[in-house]
Amino acid sequence: MIPETVAERRYAILVEGWLANRRAKTAHGLIRYGRDEVVAVIDSTLAGRRVHEVMPELERDAPIVRSLEEALDLAPTSVLVGLAPAGGRLPEEWTETLRRAADTGLEIVSGLHQRLAPLFSGGRVWDVREPPGDVPLFSGEGFGVEPKVALTVGTDTAIGKMTATLEIERAAREAGVRSEFVATGQTGIIIAGWGICVDAVVSDFVAGASEQLVLEAARREPDLILVEGQGALGHPAYSGVTLGLLHGSCPDCLVLCVASPDEEVFAGVPRPSTARAARLYEEVTALVKLAPVVAASVNTRGLDNTEAEEFIARVTDETGLPAADPFRDSAAPILEAVRRAPKSGLAGTRP
Amino acid sequence: MIPETVAERRYAILVEGWLANRRAKTAHGLIRYGRDEVVAVIDSTLAGRRVHEVMPELERDAPIVRSLEEALDLAPTSVLVGLAPAGGRLPEEWTETLRRAADTGLEIVSGLHQRLAPLFSGGRVWDVREPPGDVPLFSGEGFGVEPKVALTVGTDTAIGKMTATLEIERAAREAGVRSEFVATGQTGIIIAGWGICVDAVVSDFVAGASEQLVLEAARREPDLILVEGQGALGHPAYSGVTLGLLHGSCPDCLVLCVASPDEEVFAGVPRPSTARAARLYEEVTALVKLAPVVAASVNTRGLDNTEAEEFIARVTDETGLPAADPFRDSAAPILEAVRRAPKSGLAGTRP
Repeated sequence: MIPETVAERRYAILVEGWLANRRAKTAHGLIRYGRDEVVAVIDSTLAGRRVHEVMPELERDAPIVRSLEEALDLAPTSVLVGLAPAGGRLPEEWTETLRRAADTGLEIVSGLHQRLAPLFSGGRVWDVREPPGDVPLFSGEGFGVEPKVALTVGTDTAIGKMTATLEIERAAREAGVRSEFVATGQTGIIIAGWGICVDAVVSDFVAGASEQLVLEAARREPDLILVEGQGALGHPAYSGVTLGLLHGSCPDCLVLCVASPDEEVFAGVPRPSTARAARLYEEVTALVKLAPVVAASVNTRGLDNTEAEEFIARVTDETGLPAADPFRDSAAPILEAVRRAPKSGLAGTRP
Repeated sequence: MIPETVAERRYAILVEGWLANRRAKTAHGLIRYGRDEVVAVIDSTLAGRRVHEVMPELERDAPIVRSLEEALDLAPTSVLVGLAPAGGRLPEEWTETLRRAADTGLEIVSGLHQRLAPLFSGGRVWDVREPPGDVPLFSGEGFGVEPKVALTVGTDTAIGKMTATLEIERAAREAGVRSEFVATGQTGIIIAGWGICVDAVVSDFVAGASEQLVLEAARREPDLILVEGQGALGHPAYSGVTLGLLHGSCPDCLVLCVASPDEEVFAGVPRPSTARAARLYEEVTALVKLAPVVAASVNTRGLDNTEAEEFIARVTDETGLPAADPFRDSAAPILEAVRRAPKSGLAGTRP
């Protein structure tokens, strides 16, 4: 659903000054989960070191270089804009670097809201957020897909929904379960090679786009479809995207991604408790189709092992859900809960 | 927030074959609530009759004519595409009529998803759904607006949210309350002369667009801001738009629009009960900001007076809410409930 302009990519990732920052999640996702090679990371503040020294949790290694010109020695095919700033605009100081990349024939890959193709006309640009032009309205056809559909949801944005989904996919692969990862955001699409950025679709068509993604995944005949969630039901800026995806992807079950509850979501809005979020996700989903929350994926970033175990245990205590941190440990317990969940039906009679 | 290309409009409404159909709600809204003159309605199936014979509930009268050419004798400035088909595409057979209208110098006004400006280049076209190019992300500034904000929500789409909002505005005017109607859909914008079609905005910016509309209304210093709702929390195709508007417009209270519960929303999905919908709207809103449902606006279309009274009474019994059909009777009881509601605060501590 996204055209690929380069068949086999060798990436240089431009992330100047941000490699160790959470807002570089596009870069982090590609390094850890991407199927394409990463030949270099461009970040002059860390030049000379290697990714596995700075961010060992990203699993794959690559040299960190000072400039695009140093990266060129490693023969990349593509430069990824590795930052997802709020609002999705390209930092101005990066424009010149990308122009030089385009001039040397490299493909520019970007997940920004701002489309880069017009800035680098003549060059090869993959604007990952650009949705297809023919997204239909939601039709209800998604209610009939055969494979089980699991969707990740969260108590907040940026707490690990994509990671959880990819780790469940990894656990499925290890368990011999044929699963299909459905990418709904920029990094996921770069990793999977297909998908639609649902938050870049005109709002009337978000549910339709989500449904089309699930229908496409179903055509690949997996046992399990794993849909990457977006936003959060309680985030005032992004809740609409979340709900459009929630209803449009017709899930049979949900995996709730949580992190420390003692934070603000946004502008004074508190993060809801795990139990409250689980209940509301289920109730709102059930207006259309039943989809229980079957497990919690717990983000324990910043906690030591003991604290992490305690936090995971507390989530289970509060919700009765199996819980694990799939990044720190394994997603196997979450996969198991998803596999146990039945295919579900429409809302049916009104409670 | 929408450019006007004609200062004082005299409308011919093109609604060929659909005048008496609910899908002509754009036409109906303009006739009943519009501030611009309606010189003719073009519908050959009813030609020779008058609007007040066919649709007396629209209050304003106009002749129904056979063709654009007959309408031209009445000196319109503008032709409105008076139908909102599912998917928002122009019926092909209307294109030729509109081309003739454009050729004679008339402005074409359209609320379709499909933009008409490219079809009639050289002509004057107001594509009402075209959002402004500079909609920002939601910022939280809307949490601080001074006037009380009321939003209409519904158990389904197309059950009278815009009508309820406009009738509450009318009741406010009659009661000497300075209110500002905030249009979020095509017909509302045509009536009000400004607004943003929130369902035509890229989904990431729906909440931001909703917030900007409320901020703009607040600058006009009304006592009360009345926001037209969109979609329904339980409609799988449009729930994302609904929730983006719900959080983005930062309401202090909600008016729940209901109709007969014994219908399907869409593709086998049942319409939720009034009580269930009220509870879920409140709970989902409260993730961000408290906004109680303070009244029900009941659509009693198709019922006789006795049935309507019984239905309204049943809604009150089931929910404890004051209820009225503002179209059949008056929105005064709903306005009263809105006026009694306090300004509300952020979600604050987590329940």
